[in-house]
Amino acid sequence: AQPAKLLVLPGDGIGPEVMREVGRVITWLEKNRGLAFDITEDLVGGASLAEYGEPIRNEVIEKARAADAVLFGSVGDPRWGHVGFEKRPEVAILKLRQELELFANLRPAKVFDALVDASTLKPDVVRGLDIMIVRETVGGIYFGDPRGIETLPDGTRRGINTEVYTTPEIERVARVAFEMARKRSGHVCSVEKCNVMESGLLWKEVVTDLHAREFADVKLTHMLADNCAMQLVRNPRQFDVIVTGNLFGDILSDLASMLTGSLGMLPSATLGAVQSNGKSAALYEPIHGSAPDIAGHGIANPIAQILSFAMLLRYSLNLQEEAKMVEEAVSRVLESGLRTADIMSDGMARVGTSVMGEAIVREL
Amino acid sequence: AQPAKLLVLPGDGIGPEVMREVGRVITWLEKNRGLAFDITEDLVGGASLAEYGEPIRNEVIEKARAADAVLFGSVGDPRWGHVGFEKRPEVAILKLRQELELFANLRPAKVFDALVDASTLKPDVVRGLDIMIVRETVGGIYFGDPRGIETLPDGTRRGINTEVYTTPEIERVARVAFEMARKRSGHVCSVEKCNVMESGLLWKEVVTDLHAREFADVKLTHMLADNCAMQLVRNPRQFDVIVTGNLFGDILSDLASMLTGSLGMLPSATLGAVQSNGKSAALYEPIHGSAPDIAGHGIANPIAQILSFAMLLRYSLNLQEEAKMVEEAVSRVLESGLRTADIMSDGMARVGTSVMGEAIVREL
Ligand SMILES: CC(C)[C@H](C(=O)O)[C@@H](O)C(=O)O
Ligand SMILES: CC(C)[C@H](C(=O)O)[C@@H](O)C(=O)O
Repeated sequence: AQPAKLLVLPGDGIGPEVMREVGRVITWLEKNRGLAFDITEDLVGGASLAEYGEPIRNEVIEKARAADAVLFGSVGDPRWGHVGFEKRPEVAILKLRQELELFANLRPAKVFDALVDASTLKPDVVRGLDIMIVRETVGGIYFGDPRGIETLPDGTRRGINTEVYTTPEIERVARVAFEMARKRSGHVCSVEKCNVMESGLLWKEVVTDLHAREFADVKLTHMLADNCAMQLVRNPRQFDVIVTGNLFGDILSDLASMLTGSLGMLPSATLGAVQSNGKSAALYEPIHGSAPDIAGHGIANPIAQILSFAMLLRYSLNLQEEAKMVEEAVSRVLESGLRTADIMSDGMARVGTSVMGEAIVREL
Repeated sequence: AQPAKLLVLPGDGIGPEVMREVGRVITWLEKNRGLAFDITEDLVGGASLAEYGEPIRNEVIEKARAADAVLFGSVGDPRWGHVGFEKRPEVAILKLRQELELFANLRPAKVFDALVDASTLKPDVVRGLDIMIVRETVGGIYFGDPRGIETLPDGTRRGINTEVYTTPEIERVARVAFEMARKRSGHVCSVEKCNVMESGLLWKEVVTDLHAREFADVKLTHMLADNCAMQLVRNPRQFDVIVTGNLFGDILSDLASMLTGSLGMLPSATLGAVQSNGKSAALYEPIHGSAPDIAGHGIANPIAQILSFAMLLRYSLNLQEEAKMVEEAVSRVLESGLRTADIMSDGMARVGTSVMGEAIVREL
């Protein structure tokens, strides 16, 4: 078999530190499982701004297009707060999503038994929680035109953004959600604000039609975004798969993550449409940010980055067994009582980034 | 003194039942505090659709304009799910907001000591919680043009909504938030998505400028909407006043309410700009919905509606003392152990809507 081509983009802040621990896992898999990886690394975000004056180069986009998968760290750096809207570090991830048509962001919110007390919610409310949010990521108000800030003749300024969703954009992400539900508990909840937004009304209609045509075996419910935010706090275990647009997905997936109390544990995958070169791209990243306040201290939790790599093994390389091995190694390390600072609790052993990474490799 | 002119709009579901209990409070105030109210009642939402074929009549809007304040129940009725976008019951509240320029929705999220266990969050996280969300309610994506669903030549359908905010729209709601913070703990957190939306970028700039010009004594911080959703779950007591746009406010205020675990307790006020008749309108409503599932059973909690009336006394009629009397009567009834079904817990006495209303009047 050809080696799997990976583009690794550690980015800013703790990105490079936690990515280093994935390196250990890769080395182990090459040595012990006969796998081969062809890895290219490059800069994005503030790191790329510092070197090239832009948050991501076209060359990097092309490398991403050619790769079997992209493993992303995190971007964002307060030192680049002044660069203006066009050059902000976030452009790196937004451009990758748009250029590679990475339209379906899969955001699991899962509570690990060993960490149930880390949540600010009562253990009885979150124990066993396992939600998958499928968020549309190349449409909606993030990318719609017209947009911008204009100055009217009388000096008033006006900021404008446009939410746009078309039938095929809604269908393809809903399809991902329905297929996901078939492998899980068989329930999709579609979320919009159809009571105030026509784009949400179309969303609801398209999801309903697709369901009737192709996924009648899956249970489909609908919920308004404001109610969904409430229900995630009131009784999050009522959900299996949630499918929603870009902006609601941004907020609701972060909310769902926080229910677990351990952001440093949560991976994500963003799956793409088939491109002109016949490949479909995919990008994997932890849901936590670049955490500039703790960067360089060697205390960041590498688990979310490592679990993102496990998602890559599963979804992009179809290495189910190896994905499971990595996930189980993580669970065992947690059960053994090792904790990074962010998930520390009484009676546990506090360790840094690299000790955690080594422990996971040892459990493999 | 002239009697205070109130327009009472009970609406759908439990609206009429809980409004009846406010009637008792009004009667008591007239008898014992020498106050006079001139009250008109009318239909909105499904109730108006049933009678007049539209969710709100212009006549009702005009009555609202002429009143000193509007006391609103709730709208929404599954029997009117088929009427189409233009006629849905929600139009009643959206039209009132827009026509009376009710631009600043004040949504307190407060945890009553007696009900701290009602929250799904740990008591240590929410005890003493007291947040005020100031949500813009006549702008943003709720009302921007262009909007609608169109069919393209190839049959694809496109749903469109437009988020628009202008300098004066942002300034006036930010001013309400800063003034509110001065009477509270002196901290405003302004929330947007300036990292992806230009309307959010303008929002942040305008709030920052106004702060520097007029409110330098108040502490101002900024937060992205996704992070705000997380922080509300992680550590909600970090907030005092949150100011945000219409759509983020819709989601975040519902999220914040749910942290208290007792939606049936929470009132809201929406304050308006000065109108052509020299008056500024204001509307008061509980944050809970019409709860069609329990309507007519006499078990709904009337407290949110009664506390909405207390807000009316305070903000529209400047009756600080009477507002406090009502609020304290509610607290005492809770301390005495009476509970409606929604806030019931072990060892408390379960009562229905009217027993709760009577108990509050008795405590006055
Ligand atoms: C970095 C930012 C542009 C991004 C978003 O808003 O989509 C992030 O919050 C996310 O959820 O991936
Ligand atoms: C009824 C509905 C239109 C409304 C809104 O979305 O604003 C409600 O959710 C609210 O928050 O007052």
